[in-house]
Amino acid sequence: MRFLKAIISYDGSRFVGWQVQPNGRSVQEEIEKAILAVTGESIRVTSSGRTDSGVHAIGQVLGMTLKTKLSCQALVRAMNASTPTDVCFHELEEVDENFHAIRSAVRKRYRYLIHDDRIHDVFERHYAWQIHTALNLEKMREAARLLVGTHDFASFQSAGSDRLTTERTVHDLSIEETRRDRFHRINLEIEANGFLYNMVRIIVGTLVEVGREKKPVSWIDEILQSGDRRRAGQTAPPHGLYLLHVEY
Amino acid sequence: MRFLKAIISYDGSRFVGWQVQPNGRSVQEEIEKAILAVTGESIRVTSSGRTDSGVHAIGQVLGMTLKTKLSCQALVRAMNASTPTDVCFHELEEVDENFHAIRSAVRKRYRYLIHDDRIHDVFERHYAWQIHTALNLEKMREAARLLVGTHDFASFQSAGSDRLTTERTVHDLSIEETRRDRFHRINLEIEANGFLYNMVRIIVGTLVEVGREKKPVSWIDEILQSGDRRRAGQTAPPHGLYLLHVEY
Repeated sequence: MRFLKAIISYDGSRFVGWQVQPNGRSVQEEIEKAILAVTGESIRVTSSGRTDSGVHAIGQVLGMTLKTKLSCQALVRAMNASTPTDVCFHELEEVDENFHAIRSAVRKRYRYLIHDDRIHDVFERHYAWQIHTALNLEKMREAARLLVGTHDFASFQSAGSDRLTTERTVHDLSIEETRRDRFHRINLEIEANGFLYNMVRIIVGTLVEVGREKKPVSWIDEILQSGDRRRAGQTAPPHGLYLLHVEY
Repeated sequence: MRFLKAIISYDGSRFVGWQVQPNGRSVQEEIEKAILAVTGESIRVTSSGRTDSGVHAIGQVLGMTLKTKLSCQALVRAMNASTPTDVCFHELEEVDENFHAIRSAVRKRYRYLIHDDRIHDVFERHYAWQIHTALNLEKMREAARLLVGTHDFASFQSAGSDRLTTERTVHDLSIEETRRDRFHRINLEIEANGFLYNMVRIIVGTLVEVGREKKPVSWIDEILQSGDRRRAGQTAPPHGLYLLHVEY
């Protein structure tokens, strides 16, 4: 038996999400079908975490156990020839049998892309949250600083989550602006030792309320202290979210 | 009667091209339908040029004649509410009745995006030509310099064109490299006083042969002198091409 770790990317637009589901096309299913085609082995692949429908991945990590004698390089090539064009294998390496894609992860980093231009960017309709009013980035950065550190993020979690504790440590939450052609883009990146269900999207929805100047910066502390999901902002749409990197 | 000039963008992925065609969705048709919905006027819109299926536009220019009393700003808003999300109106202004979207154009600028990474970028499958070997950019730039200036571009034209002369002046042909996440992107931009049918895509296909080191830089002069389409490289795929700007 060989224990393998893979790094993959996928465009979430045409998937129901990571996990196999009875109705609709999942990333997991496409990968397991390709593994069967390439190696003849019918296995279950694990990932560092599920992603919802529409959510993208640039550095999702998978764990799998295979018997094939193919080299890692040959497997990457064969997998890329067998998976659809919206999934791609970047790297594959042998790991210790104790490696576990979810439990061994120590940090994760996500990106969230926002366009705050009055005019819609036709190329980003599946790849960024388009808000048609300019956001106050300075206020958003002030609010973001209040989220960095170790906090109980219970208010930033959707129902349906089964995590034992809601305490997490946010190591970094940066907000950068870039311009491409005529469009103003906001690149928000957040790194933590773990995330609750929809935590990034609720944080983004909340920071956007501050950026719109509908809520003051101090609102963040109120939300954290309340432990109440209803106090925070909306859950930002899935298509702006990218799983960037998982550290082990 | 009001004579109007519009600047629009569109994602070409799901269109059969600019021009109305019996089978399939065209940009022109979507815009004319929206104009009818907004103003009640059934008109024919002209553009600075047709774009083929899959080709994108960031700054396509349209000409139209309308009776509506709506202000330009109100029309832009109404059009954006009525067109599908892969077409967007940026600006609309009143122009002289002599304005003609094709004939009044004095310069056009196109972009062509290439990824020359071994690994496929899932997010760019409809937005860049992905070549899985690294290109020699220095050789491509040397070759590009031979195309700048006034030449007979007959060898860089597909059949089916009805232009009276095949002489054109290329004012600029730049090749820049950028990096985004793990991907190496090549941003080629070309500006000329006019383009023959498929000229940009044949130039790109030819420069890529040089970048792959399958042909020497001096090949460009041979092609120009031959006046023979068969001597040039392949026509690069449509989905890497963007109409950037039209000058009047």
